[in-house]
Formats: sequence, C-alpha cells, structure tokens
Amino acid sequence: MKLRTPIIIVNFKTYLEATGQKAVELAKYAGKAAKETGASIAVAPQFADIARVADAVEIPVFAQHMDPIKPGNSTGHVLSESVKEAGAVGSLINHSERQLKLSDIDAIITLAREQNLISCVCSNNPSVSVSLAAMKPDIVSFEPPELIGTGIAVSKAQPDVVTKTVDLVRQINPNITILCGAGISQSEDVSTALKLRTNGVLVASGIVKAKDPYSILHAFANATKQ
Amino acid sequence: MKLRTPIIIVNFKTYLEATGQKAVELAKYAGKAAKETGASIAVAPQFADIARVADAVEIPVFAQHMDPIKPGNSTGHVLSESVKEAGAVGSLINHSERQLKLSDIDAIITLAREQNLISCVCSNNPSVSVSLAAMKPDIVSFEPPELIGTGIAVSKAQPDVVTKTVDLVRQINPNITILCGAGISQSEDVSTALKLRTNGVLVASGIVKAKDPYSILHAFANATKQ
Amino acid sequence: MKLRTPIIIVNFKTYLEATGQKAVELAKYAGKAAKETGASIAVAPQFADIARVADAVEIPVFAQHMDPIKPGNSTGHVLSESVKEAGAVGSLINHSERQLKLSDIDAIITLAREQNLISCVCSNNPSVSVSLAAMKPDIVSFEPPELIGTGIAVSKAQPDVVTKTVDLVRQINPNITILCGAGISQSEDVSTALKLRTNGVLVASGIVKAKDPYSILHAFANATKQ
Amino acid sequence: MKLRTPIIIVNFKTYLEATGQKAVELAKYAGKAAKETGASIAVAPQFADIARVADAVEIPVFAQHMDPIKPGNSTGHVLSESVKEAGAVGSLINHSERQLKLSDIDAIITLAREQNLISCVCSNNPSVSVSLAAMKPDIVSFEPPELIGTGIAVSKAQPDVVTKTVDLVRQINPNITILCGAGISQSEDVSTALKLRTNGVLVASGIVKAKDPYSILHAFANATKQ
Repeated sequence: MKLRTPIIIVNFKTYLEATGQKAVELAKYAGKAAKETGASIAVAPQFADIARVADAVEIPVFAQHMDPIKPGNSTGHVLSESVKEAGAVGSLINHSERQLKLSDIDAIITLAREQNLISCVCSNNPSVSVSLAAMKPDIVSFEPPELIGTGIAVSKAQPDVVTKTVDLVRQINPNITILCGAGISQSEDVSTALKLRTNGVLVASGIVKAKDPYSILHAFANATKQ
Repeated sequence: MKLRTPIIIVNFKTYLEATGQKAVELAKYAGKAAKETGASIAVAPQFADIARVADAVEIPVFAQHMDPIKPGNSTGHVLSESVKEAGAVGSLINHSERQLKLSDIDAIITLAREQNLISCVCSNNPSVSVSLAAMKPDIVSFEPPELIGTGIAVSKAQPDVVTKTVDLVRQINPNITILCGAGISQSEDVSTALKLRTNGVLVASGIVKAKDPYSILHAFANATKQ
Repeated sequence: MKLRTPIIIVNFKTYLEATGQKAVELAKYAGKAAKETGASIAVAPQFADIARVADAVEIPVFAQHMDPIKPGNSTGHVLSESVKEAGAVGSLINHSERQLKLSDIDAIITLAREQNLISCVCSNNPSVSVSLAAMKPDIVSFEPPELIGTGIAVSKAQPDVVTKTVDLVRQINPNITILCGAGISQSEDVSTALKLRTNGVLVASGIVKAKDPYSILHAFANATKQ
Repeated sequence: MKLRTPIIIVNFKTYLEATGQKAVELAKYAGKAAKETGASIAVAPQFADIARVADAVEIPVFAQHMDPIKPGNSTGHVLSESVKEAGAVGSLINHSERQLKLSDIDAIITLAREQNLISCVCSNNPSVSVSLAAMKPDIVSFEPPELIGTGIAVSKAQPDVVTKTVDLVRQINPNITILCGAGISQSEDVSTALKLRTNGVLVASGIVKAKDPYSILHAFANATKQ
C-alpha cells in the first residue's frame, strides 16, 4: 500500500459530527471529493467506525491510534491486526492528543511495518519531528499544539517553522512524506502548506465542524491539484 | 437496559481467535448458547468489532474500555457515545490490563450513567472492590491478577477471598451485581462462583482459547441455570 | 506516630518560594507558628528538600508523593523507605496534580501502613472521597480542582459539598481524619472549615505565595485554636 | 559544567543498599576510587538523598529523573531547579524503568540546557538511540532492558549492537557522549565498552549489590584508565 501525495488526511477525532453514521456520511463526502478532483484524500475515524467507513468508501482509512501490543492479554487496547482487519491501511501515531512513550512509538512503527500498515507519526515541534523521522515511519505530521482547533493555519502563522522542519526532516530521511496541520481551515492554507514543500495536510475541525464539509473538502482537494 | 443475572461476560481481549470475523463467529456461539439454555451471556469484543458483533447477535455487547472524555478533541480515545452508537450496552472499566486513575473511573461511571450504559468496573482485591462499589457502578468484577489466564479458577483457589469481597461490597452497596473472574475454565468454576454468592463470572481465555468454544459456552450457560 | 488535630498541612508544591534553602526557611516559620500558638502544623516540601527540612524543624514533615514500589529496580521513583529515612512521617497520595491508578493508591496506603507512615490521600469530589475512605488511609483531603490556587476557599464557596463529604466519609470510616483544601487564603477559611466538621486544612499558595507567610501561618494557627 | 570522559555513572536506583546514609557511604567510595585512580565517576542517588550525597562528595551527582515542569503547581513532581539547588549537576532522563513521552523528553532536554544541567537520556535500542541523539542531549546511554540486572554485560553479549548504535548516533550527532549499560559487572565489561568506542558505562547492581562495592569501583575506575 502506497499513498499518493500530495494528500489530505481528515482526522475525525471524537467529534459527534463524525461519529457513527455521521462518520460514514463524512467519509463518503471525502470519497466523492477525491473522485471528482482526482486528489488524494484519506480519513481517520474512531475505532468503532473503521469497519463501517472502510466498507462505505474506496479512499484510504486510518486508525487514530494503535497500541504497542501483540495479540493476547491486552483488554481495552488497540491491536494493529484488529484495525487492519476492519479495513484500516494505516494509523495516526502519537497525535498531540494521544502522546506516547518514545520506546512505544518505536515499537508501533515496527509493528506497522510488519503488518504493512502506513505509520503517520505526529510531532509538536521541529526537534521532535527530526527525532521521529529517525525512526523511519512512512509519514511525519507536524502540528504545533497551540494552533490546533484555532482556525489559524500553521502554514500561514509559522511558515518558517514549517520550512525549517521540512529541511531538518529531509536531511535525516530524504524520502519521508511530511504533512503539517493545526488550524487548516481555508484552501489557501493547503496551497501554502504545499508551497512550503510539505506533502499535504492533516486537518480536523476545519472539515468536521464546517457548515458544509463537502464544499470545503472539494476546495481543499482542488488546492492540492494546482 | 438491565442485565439478567446470573450472567457470563466473555471478554474477547485482543486474542486473534476473537478478532474481526472470528469475533463475530464467537459472539454467535455465545448467542446460540444463551438462546438454547435460557442463560444470560454477554460479550466484550475489541472496539473495531463492536458494530459488526452487535449487528450479528441479540445478546448484550460490551466495550472493553471507555475514556473519561466528552465529544471533541480527543484523537485516539474511546468516546462513550461512539461505542453506544456502535451497539454496545455497557463497558468494562478499569480491567487489570487497562487500569485507570481513580478520578477517571469516577468520571467514566458518571458518563455511563448519563448515557444509559452499564458500567462493569474491575478490581484486583477486596479493598479495591469496596472502593469501587462506593462509586455506585452497576457491576463490580473481582479478578486476582495472579490467576488471570492460568486456568486456576478464583472460585476454587480463593473461595474465602471471593466470599469476603461479596460481603464487604454488599455492605456498602446491597444491590450491586458482583462478578468474579480469573482462571474460570470449567463449568464447576461457574457453579462454585454462584455458590459463593456472586452474580456471575467474567471469563476470557477459558472460552476464547478453547478448542471448542461453543461446547464450553454451553456448559457454562447450563451451570448458571442449576 | 499520630498527628494532633485540628491540623494545617502546608503543601510546598514546586514553588520556587519553597524550594531548597527557602523550603527550610518556610518550614521554620511553620514550626515557630506551631510552637507559639500550640497549633498542629505539618509541611510537605519537595523530595530533595525533605532531609534538610526535617533536620531543621520539629513539626511533622510529609512527602508530596510516594510510588507503589518495593526497594530495587525503580530508577527515578519515590521509595517509601527513602522518604522515611530522610525524615518524613507521612506522604500526600493522589494529589490532584499527581493522580494515580486506583490499585496503586491501594498499594501505597498498604505500604504506608507497613512503614508506619501517615497516608494522606487527596480527592476531587464527594464520591471519590468515599471511595478513598473505603481503603482506610489515615487522612482524606478533599480539594475541588477548580478552586485550587484561586483564593476562593472551598469552605466558603462549597460549604454544602464539604458537609456532604464529611457525612459520607464518616459513615464509611468514622475515625478518619478529614481535611479540605483549595483556595484557603484567610484565617476565616480555616475556622469555617472546622465549623463544617473537618479536622483541618491542606493549604499551598495561600501560605507559600503570601507576602508575609509567617503572619498568615500564625493567623491560620490561631484559627485552629478557637 | 563538563564531564570528563571516559566516565562511569553509578545509578543507585531504589536499592536499600544505596538509600539514605548508605547512599552517602557508597558515594564516598565512588569519590575515593575516582580520586585514587584519576578516573571520572558520577553517582545518581534517589531524590531525597541528592543534597546529602552532594554535600559529602566532590564527584558529579545526577538526579535519576526530572519532570518537564516549570516552578508552580506540580505537587509530587521533580523540578529541575530543585535537584540543581540540592547539588545535582545533571539528570538521567527516560531510564527504561522511568520511560517518558517523546515530547516530554524533548522538553526536559530543553529545561536541562536552560539550567546548565547535563542531560543523560537512556535508550533501549539503536533506533531509539538515534531518535534521542537528534534532540541533542549531552549524553545518550544505551541499555537493552533484557540484560539489566542480569550480570551479562551488554558489551560482551551484544558488541555488534553497541558498535552499530555508536555509528548511527555519531552520524547524527558527532560530539555526543555515548554510554552503554546493562549487566556491567566486571572490569573487562568496562574495557570492552570503551573498545567498542563508547565513552563509558552506566552501571547499577554490579556496584550497588556487590559484596565489596569499593573494590569493584576501584577496578572499574582502573579499567577506564588503560
């Protein structure tokens, strides 16, 4: 499995607007926008929605988290085999809302590799981005926590930090996919992110909480095609 | 929603034998055994399997864990609304393999009450059982961690501890449902648990790893009807 | 070791005003106020300051936390034997800024009992207070997190909650010492807490950040003697 | 503050043999061995012992852990200002027995830099070592958890892993100090570690649990001078 870039990954978080049947509907909008524009879009619903979403759409589906566990005695944890069987092709790892111990991140990246799952690890600053890139995940996504959910796009507010992160990460791992996120709410934010030499964006409330998610998805998708 | 007791709750943990399509099959066996014997059986599959299992069976389905969160910015966490929408009627909480902070357990029990979800909190010793019962969950399940997965049943190995726990818990909360677990692998273990005045058992590997899970489920179910 | 009540426990937290040599000075003020008024005052400095503080004063010294560990391979953890040897007579446990898993709280209370250390467990609401009291620690201290550091005293803002907590806790454990905390900044807050039938207060910024900590300590101490 | 290398850091963990007055005695042996041989030795006692140990010896003293916090409301946590004021010149960070979230490790390294404290971060495998080196701590210490406390030295059992780690780490950070640990119990283990181009060892039970810690310390110290 290989993702096409540039890519938009839509993180459904635990928003009610993206839970259960509404997760399926939102994912269908993403699939429609991807089809119409030819853009690459993926979605990351909650664990309990992965199977229904994956059944309903053809675009890639991610889990929001996986645990560093093997099958067995791990009640209440998220097994990579389980999310894969449900239809996920990869997982967010170490999102700023679900941070992990360093050795666990390393173990999960290894598990993902063994299961042919795409690992998308999240970082909060340039130094941590480099540190993560050193463990050779498929994707590093850079999100300054102070901008998450603000509508102030990282690509607009901190272009130098994005560029610096891209340079430092490419130095240590030239072929890794680099995303940025936090505050992405307009299609210019997507274009700007790509101009700063990232390979796409990780977006959540900008889509999920929008009055008309489909039109925003369509605009974002178009922005990746310019 | 009210569970009938005595009850058998089957915890699927993260066993491959109870993941994905196999979770659905195992849940169907449990449903069949419940129907044939008239016994009360519930199942607790992994998050990604809740919806498919709940669609396939009529017996109660539990989540294995929920987080103390409200809808919103909680990437990678388990929202009570999400597991409920997927078809769960309750959740295990604080399983010995997924232990929680005290104030989080309290918050999750409150969330479950608000959502009309059945709260089944797990404890590792008599003192903790009483402490949990004080927070008024629907079910307390007592499991000595050192017996989990051993095949040495708590009801056989520690009858005095089970009785003491039942007495202490009933003193503080007379109407609570009390289960015991760990090492339950034979139908006598179930009968003994009921004789010790519990209201049922929480069982995992004894069913999930059995060569013929259906016949064990059937025998366990019969043991609750004597 | 038995604490005299009513008691004031001063939590030094990690304030610079109560770190190192300043911790020793503040503890001396507490000792002086205790001596002059005959009141019972204890102090809870940071780990690295316990020995120096205990050497400098005769009033009881508490640790701010202990871990549920036995001697051995626990790098970076807090051993009960270590804080005791340094001069602590007890420890805060499960402070709202250092919350613990339920089974760990239970294990630490047991460790404290074995080591003849006084266990002072902290709770955030009435339900959790009862749950903690069920594990039979020496002291339960009730602190609503939303009032901590505000200067709005729990005894003034939530008298009904304090009274309710006292009643529920005494029902399950008649002889336990009950403290309340959060926002205690004036001597009336202390008097009010005692009128609500608590056995004292847990206070931090009200003393540590005061311009003249000694005069506040003296006034608080007097308030416990009326 | 700059450490001389090659160096031996003795981690006192939470062994009773290295708690309280015994921590002071063991540190004095280390100081004596350092003085007699001219070798560089540092010690890492428990938090409550840092001040007494630092008062008693002239060799560098490390904390075993620090938290990613600023002064203020962090009851029960370890403040860098506090361990520094007590006499520590640095801290172990992310020891395999006290593992941390990645962003917290990054924050603690930054704090240490601001406070002029030496950061010695611990890793469990080559990949994690590189990841840590990318955050530019002063020291990376590599310890395979499976060998800790076994008496089977990493330098003897996994020479290729040590060499690989050294190469990968130097590639990303040429001037960093690299230690290895786990199972170091004989002076040859120290010599071998240096031959594999590390800058020293992190040792615990090999010294702390020895019948005659001083003679072992002396032998280890001599091994670094060859």
